[in-house]
Amino acid sequence: MVGARKDGGRRRSLSKTRLEAYSDGVFAIAATLLILDVAVHPPGSPWEQVRNAWPAYVAYLVSFLAIGGAWIAHAALTDRLVKTDPVFLRLNLLVLLTVVFLPFPTRLLSEGFGEQEAERVAVTLFGGTLLAIRLTGVALDGYARREHLYRNVEDDEGDEGELEDSRRKSLITIVGYVVTILVGLVLPGVAVAFYFALVLYVVVPFREVTALLLHRPASR
Amino acid sequence: MVGARKDGGRRRSLSKTRLEAYSDGVFAIAATLLILDVAVHPPGSPWEQVRNAWPAYVAYLVSFLAIGGAWIAHAALTDRLVKTDPVFLRLNLLVLLTVVFLPFPTRLLSEGFGEQEAERVAVTLFGGTLLAIRLTGVALDGYARREHLYRNVEDDEGDEGELEDSRRKSLITIVGYVVTILVGLVLPGVAVAFYFALVLYVVVPFREVTALLLHRPASR
Amino acid sequence: MVGARKDGGRRRSLSKTRLEAYSDGVFAIAATLLILDVAVHPPGSPWEQVRNAWPAYVAYLVSFLAIGGAWIAHAALTDRLVKTDPVFLRLNLLVLLTVVFLPFPTRLLSEGFGEQEAERVAVTLFGGTLLAIRLTGVALDGYARREHLYRNVEDDEGDEGELEDSRRKSLITIVGYVVTILVGLVLPGVAVAFYFALVLYVVVPFREVTALLLHRPASR
Amino acid sequence: MVGARKDGGRRRSLSKTRLEAYSDGVFAIAATLLILDVAVHPPGSPWEQVRNAWPAYVAYLVSFLAIGGAWIAHAALTDRLVKTDPVFLRLNLLVLLTVVFLPFPTRLLSEGFGEQEAERVAVTLFGGTLLAIRLTGVALDGYARREHLYRNVEDDEGDEGELEDSRRKSLITIVGYVVTILVGLVLPGVAVAFYFALVLYVVVPFREVTALLLHRPASR
Repeated sequence: MVGARKDGGRRRSLSKTRLEAYSDGVFAIAATLLILDVAVHPPGSPWEQVRNAWPAYVAYLVSFLAIGGAWIAHAALTDRLVKTDPVFLRLNLLVLLTVVFLPFPTRLLSEGFGEQEAERVAVTLFGGTLLAIRLTGVALDGYARREHLYRNVEDDEGDEGELEDSRRKSLITIVGYVVTILVGLVLPGVAVAFYFALVLYVVVPFREVTALLLHRPASR
Repeated sequence: MVGARKDGGRRRSLSKTRLEAYSDGVFAIAATLLILDVAVHPPGSPWEQVRNAWPAYVAYLVSFLAIGGAWIAHAALTDRLVKTDPVFLRLNLLVLLTVVFLPFPTRLLSEGFGEQEAERVAVTLFGGTLLAIRLTGVALDGYARREHLYRNVEDDEGDEGELEDSRRKSLITIVGYVVTILVGLVLPGVAVAFYFALVLYVVVPFREVTALLLHRPASR
Repeated sequence: MVGARKDGGRRRSLSKTRLEAYSDGVFAIAATLLILDVAVHPPGSPWEQVRNAWPAYVAYLVSFLAIGGAWIAHAALTDRLVKTDPVFLRLNLLVLLTVVFLPFPTRLLSEGFGEQEAERVAVTLFGGTLLAIRLTGVALDGYARREHLYRNVEDDEGDEGELEDSRRKSLITIVGYVVTILVGLVLPGVAVAFYFALVLYVVVPFREVTALLLHRPASR
Repeated sequence: MVGARKDGGRRRSLSKTRLEAYSDGVFAIAATLLILDVAVHPPGSPWEQVRNAWPAYVAYLVSFLAIGGAWIAHAALTDRLVKTDPVFLRLNLLVLLTVVFLPFPTRLLSEGFGEQEAERVAVTLFGGTLLAIRLTGVALDGYARREHLYRNVEDDEGDEGELEDSRRKSLITIVGYVVTILVGLVLPGVAVAFYFALVLYVVVPFREVTALLLHRPASR
């Protein structure tokens, strides 16, 4: 059909499997590279050096969970995809671009700890990257909805999945990041604690944990 | 059939899935390793150090998108594959060889910025690597066509997919890289801007974006 | 079913394939990054330098096998999964968090060798990480059992698979790690030998090897 | 069947897909990490530095192709697998252990170039690692044959695939590595050229290339 070739809006859907494989690889590597920046430095006895490296552990923990949380949201999103299109593929690259960037401010954060000015710069860049990961993720989800790339939600029979969980938490997280970036300009140490709390908020599935703690039987 | 064993042209097609998995891994790691070379250096206040590292951010951005673009082209190519053969597997290794090499000139580029001579060498090597990625990709595609490794295009019903998009842009990109390599010998800074533009040209799906901006309904 | 949307315990099972792909990536990268810390240092002739780096080889060997063993246990575990749920996904992230951490004490171990105090600290951290990998793995398995995420064991017809092997070895391994951590506080060098033995105990499938050595025919 | 539980030789076959995914990840990362050791060093003008780094390029090229060749052989091997077993999984870990080790002698090789003694040590370690990769691969293949883990060769209708190609080249390659290790003790520079030739011998599919050059039509 030569006519169809000209309509400019027609798209062949590239294998979703490849998109997932590439994305999984990038998420996994970004998360694993974080450990390269966990290191001890003189002065001090070996035990003091390991103890004094605690900001590096905190930075590792927060960033690892942030990437893990972004991966869960991404997996939930592509899980619903029926097809992809060229714009979706490129938006996905933007999400990955921000995820891969995270190890850089993480390293700044663990190195700059204790120096007021370095800490402020690192915390701001860190928060900006977390915000960018979330915003590109929202754009990807919004595009997929607008272009009907998802399968029908009705097929899931009212089931609240990871994607809904992620969407519900989106606005609070975005506001939280913006507020924390502002807080970090004045109190960088407090901002790190805030980011930790926000990452936990993103990652922890509260309803399921509550259900577990109340010993409610697990539903199928 | 013992006779067939001797004909020297007979080939068993190795699992396409493995080829894609290995390639996805290599692309993903090459893209993610780029962040290791984004770093700040004294002198200056922390904020100045982060600001002065901007050539590293630009190099990261260009190389990440270049690898992302090469990945999309590669995924589109293998998406059409019906089978592989021994020569195809080795040509694919050559493509990956050039992709993995890219982080090296990227590092040179971000380190050499501002020193006329170092910049010229880095920009030339960078352009040569981008050109090599594209040329090996063209060779892979050409071989697959020649040996009928693709499924019939007719099956796609005149649909213009990523592979066609990539082929259409091939000649312009190759000419663009060659011209920019020559430009870079005189004006390395200008060449970086050119490479950025060329990478955007490769990655951005103009027709789809235009269709989006004109609010045309998305086709199925 | 709007009613179901409110019950708080209902879950959509995220693709098991994605979970496996992300986990495989993290395990593979953590294992491969270990080689970055195998390096030679002056003084000495080149041959002496290579020979003197033997603690780095031992550390590489132990950690590589530890990650390999954890990967086998993880693969056996997810192999039995019928579905995942949000809590399982997060527990899995915790397993990966401990696996990715291992290259850090591995590096400390190979660097601190020969300095009594540094060795003690490194060996303790190393043992703690191995223990944490095992404990998070036990938690993951326990959760999957409790929530009936596995397929019925009866379907496997009494077959003793990797998962059973891993479970049977669990208690001994945990006790072994705890004992070795205590030993390491006094005799760090001995503790390294113990960890090596424990990792071999975890990785080597004794019954199969015995069957092989006794020339019993392999069963289907 | 409780009785079966005791026979000590019964095995549940762990998902082949997981084995391939983990192996692909390890191969891909090991190949990509090689670029981290390609670097320029003072003294000299930028152009001289890039030119003087040529031993690093050669080392990168040889090791990348060696890992690529090992990956092709591995993919061909697992492609024929019908099932895995616990011993096979562990032998596979040993193959990966040797592959992941390769970046270390590669780094020594590119750093030690030009210093007779350092070069000799590096070349010997490099050759030993290449030999170990090949020997563990042969062991893996031998075990799979002995335990009937492959599907029937007859099903492939006399087809000479990658696995046969790899087996046919095995003895020559092993002898070649042993000879070159001995040569390298006296003439390390010559040994590097030999390794290059051997890697090309392993990777290049001569019959297919000959067929291509003679313009014979490609067989299905």
